[in-house]
Amino acid sequence: MKKIGFIGVGIMGKSMVRNLMKAGFEVGIYTRTREKAEDVILEGAIWYPDPASCARDKDCVITIVGYPKDVEEVYFGEEGILKGADPGTCLIDMTTTSPELAKRIYEEAGKKGCKAIDAPVTGGDTGAREGTLTILAGGDQEDFDRCLPVFEAMGKAIRYTGGPGNGQHTKMCNQIAIAGSIAGVCEAITYARANGLDDRNMVESIATGAAGSAQLNAQAPKILSNDFEPGFFIKHFIKDMKIAEEEAARAGVSLGVLTYIRSMYENMEENGHGDEGTQALIKYYQW
Amino acid sequence: MKKIGFIGVGIMGKSMVRNLMKAGFEVGIYTRTREKAEDVILEGAIWYPDPASCARDKDCVITIVGYPKDVEEVYFGEEGILKGADPGTCLIDMTTTSPELAKRIYEEAGKKGCKAIDAPVTGGDTGAREGTLTILAGGDQEDFDRCLPVFEAMGKAIRYTGGPGNGQHTKMCNQIAIAGSIAGVCEAITYARANGLDDRNMVESIATGAAGSAQLNAQAPKILSNDFEPGFFIKHFIKDMKIAEEEAARAGVSLGVLTYIRSMYENMEENGHGDEGTQALIKYYQW
Repeated sequence: MKKIGFIGVGIMGKSMVRNLMKAGFEVGIYTRTREKAEDVILEGAIWYPDPASCARDKDCVITIVGYPKDVEEVYFGEEGILKGADPGTCLIDMTTTSPELAKRIYEEAGKKGCKAIDAPVTGGDTGAREGTLTILAGGDQEDFDRCLPVFEAMGKAIRYTGGPGNGQHTKMCNQIAIAGSIAGVCEAITYARANGLDDRNMVESIATGAAGSAQLNAQAPKILSNDFEPGFFIKHFIKDMKIAEEEAARAGVSLGVLTYIRSMYENMEENGHGDEGTQALIKYYQW
Repeated sequence: MKKIGFIGVGIMGKSMVRNLMKAGFEVGIYTRTREKAEDVILEGAIWYPDPASCARDKDCVITIVGYPKDVEEVYFGEEGILKGADPGTCLIDMTTTSPELAKRIYEEAGKKGCKAIDAPVTGGDTGAREGTLTILAGGDQEDFDRCLPVFEAMGKAIRYTGGPGNGQHTKMCNQIAIAGSIAGVCEAITYARANGLDDRNMVESIATGAAGSAQLNAQAPKILSNDFEPGFFIKHFIKDMKIAEEEAARAGVSLGVLTYIRSMYENMEENGHGDEGTQALIKYYQW
């Protein structure tokens, strides 16, 4: 593993590219608007005009883009990755997308003699910047092992979760647990305010016990300061929750609490809050 | 503060009595069945045949019983605390009960020249045994200050949350946040199993990130081992959630996720699971 193609140089992607270069990898990038990547190009990344050329002559290709449809485009599009990638190349999709799509990429990659790993992450832009992402990888164990140095350059907790699609499935579990947590946090704060409690004192009082959570620690302070800037966009969370519901239904289970929370968030998106952070759910209770 | 009356010597109460005696307090107890308290009586606690005599000639009286109706009985009953307590005595209810009831006790205590503090706890039987309970106290600040040595003998994080009822309100916030967390944990595990993931690997993979929570850490291992023994009873959790909903409604807010989760738990109770631990919610998804 020496030469890496990287597609999707957004806030997170840029940090990941930097960490890969820092670890000694040669990184080629493709991004829709070259201007947005000028800084990492100056730092040594090689720019390509389309996914196919970015994928050519690489040991592995990493993608981290917005939505499943973007993933489909960069993989299966006319000048897509599968057109350019040489046999033996490992294709790693780190976008949070559907397990079904991950399996399809795995199959299509196989037809071209390529290998595929779905490896969505948690830890956000801070984790990407500091190289402390959690990476949830699905695919064949031998390909995972081969790509481990690449993952280690970007993340800290690197988990092999089983066959193709399982990285995405595990990420869905992550999102499902977060949904419950953030809703509980927002309802607790709503209750506290309605009943005249000092909300900050309440949060501090419950944070160290059985009600404690990463969501309470990270999001409650933002809510108390009326900071609704996106650490994680509501619109992206809705996408994830929909995938989780679809996959749950496909597997024959129904997750009522998730569905309830997703409908609240959709209501918020319809009211123009899709570009706010998930902590803005508190506003739902103020209407 | 030297002489304490203690009413409700159950699993938690017994540990609290021991910690009070260890700290040098003289403890009198009342419990419905004397036999159940023989061990702490042998260790030095003085037994009384009714709440009134247990409350007489004490600096403070602590109650930790099951349901609001039990609290009403020990305070307002014919041989209740308010009949026996001397003026100046501080009455501390550590049962999780309604903020309304806490205010009523405060008022009735005031008429007798007594003071009252509502001080529900979190941390369960382990916290009670190890003297590391979180104590959420509401009432007058001067009474709280006066009782601090008593609280410090039983707990670690001791929080003054404002006027009468606010301890209970803060405890409700705690339960509301827990409801979201545990539901998210159960839905994540349900999803994982339905989609063929290794549930233990999934839990370990998400525990250190944004989906992490005290509920995930404490309850998921029990769920994975099919251990449904009560750390906290479903029937008691339902009681708490109902109080939270009533108080939310009284304050003009509605907590949809809490209501949804409470209805799931009620369904479980109707099916005979009320005496299991809250982690048994996982069974709801298996029907």
